[in-house]
Amino acid sequence: MRDWRDGLRVVLVAPRNPLNIGAAARAISNFGFAHLRLVNPYELAFREARSAVGASAVLEAAREYAGVAEAVADCSLVVGTTALGKRGLQHPLRRLEYGGRLIRKHLREAPAALLFGSEKYGLANHDLSHCHWLVRIPTREEHGSMNLGQSVAVALYELIRDARAPQARPQPLRAASGEQAERFTALLGEALGESGYVNPRTSSSTEQKLRRMVRRQALTARDADVWLGIFRQLLWKLRNS
Amino acid sequence: MRDWRDGLRVVLVAPRNPLNIGAAARAISNFGFAHLRLVNPYELAFREARSAVGASAVLEAAREYAGVAEAVADCSLVVGTTALGKRGLQHPLRRLEYGGRLIRKHLREAPAALLFGSEKYGLANHDLSHCHWLVRIPTREEHGSMNLGQSVAVALYELIRDARAPQARPQPLRAASGEQAERFTALLGEALGESGYVNPRTSSSTEQKLRRMVRRQALTARDADVWLGIFRQLLWKLRNS
Repeated sequence: MRDWRDGLRVVLVAPRNPLNIGAAARAISNFGFAHLRLVNPYELAFREARSAVGASAVLEAAREYAGVAEAVADCSLVVGTTALGKRGLQHPLRRLEYGGRLIRKHLREAPAALLFGSEKYGLANHDLSHCHWLVRIPTREEHGSMNLGQSVAVALYELIRDARAPQARPQPLRAASGEQAERFTALLGEALGESGYVNPRTSSSTEQKLRRMVRRQALTARDADVWLGIFRQLLWKLRNS
Repeated sequence: MRDWRDGLRVVLVAPRNPLNIGAAARAISNFGFAHLRLVNPYELAFREARSAVGASAVLEAAREYAGVAEAVADCSLVVGTTALGKRGLQHPLRRLEYGGRLIRKHLREAPAALLFGSEKYGLANHDLSHCHWLVRIPTREEHGSMNLGQSVAVALYELIRDARAPQARPQPLRAASGEQAERFTALLGEALGESGYVNPRTSSSTEQKLRRMVRRQALTARDADVWLGIFRQLLWKLRNS
């Protein structure tokens, strides 16, 4: 089975800035997508983006179209992106978190297009009329308009983010065992006794304080070994000087 | 109570490109954060970013620091960002989806710093030693390194995204009522009869086919009214010509 990400077409409508075209291509590559389509780009911008050092395979494979209709001809779902604006939208508007889920679901069956408008004007009404619905990235109302390259990156991240990842720690460090913590507590107590920080004939309440303090450090197994080495050395020095 | 987002310090270490500094500031503003800190930026880059047209309030309030220690002095959690790399990391590494949740939780109690390295080298080992742990944006292994401005935008989006939003449709369009759908079905049947597309004395199976077809269109209430108007007009023309 092909990767579902292969079905996404990222469509930039009338982009003006070569850096944004390059940034869109880079995000597409970073997140494992493949297809960049440009509708009526400023010619110079496309040429400059392509000639940039390190232009990715995505940029080299990018294709140019005369209109939105041609760019989305093979897509059975077309989604426009919009900044939170006051203009009377004629489309259902979904937050990216929800819209992203629908796009992902569609991509498992058939190709879909995600449209981004020009840096200055966004998507025109004519472009929007090709869309089934719209998504907006949840920026704040007072400053809703995002940089084009950044909005492509955020939208694609939403598509590939793992909804189950927040529940799992991928690479936890092994915590110190109770035995290690206890050896550390004992060594620490001895060192403090030798140094005069506490009276060696102190009550057991001090030992308990130390024990609790060591447990609060959330030591890893590796760090516990380092601490044990440090205190063994300190103790040796204290006893031999 | 202050907005929890006010506790985040976005720290760029040794950024070289004024466009990236500007893009980081823009994302900070888009997503409702406030504090940008620069450690040892290329002086010209900072100056150019600040003089850029439309430099945001965030950029104007950005402060410069001589080292990471000074930039994170008021933070009780320091998280570094890293591309998926093969270098032997000395820190717990968490995917952004999970790490973001921990940062958000911390910010409800106390300030936290999120560190981004320079465009070329990322965070140096010296910078990383100030971090409690690291996050990585889940880019693909073959092309893990993101543009600095885009990685700031993606990380901040993860912090503000609404985990519950995927379950809700924020602005659904009202669907056509059963009555509207039925009126449409009837008008369609009449028009097809008048046009000779179907025999008026046809079996009820045709009517049922039409009814099912209309239901499959997922009509909105507003669009249903438009369709009713269209077919009333077509029917009038068919009967009066």
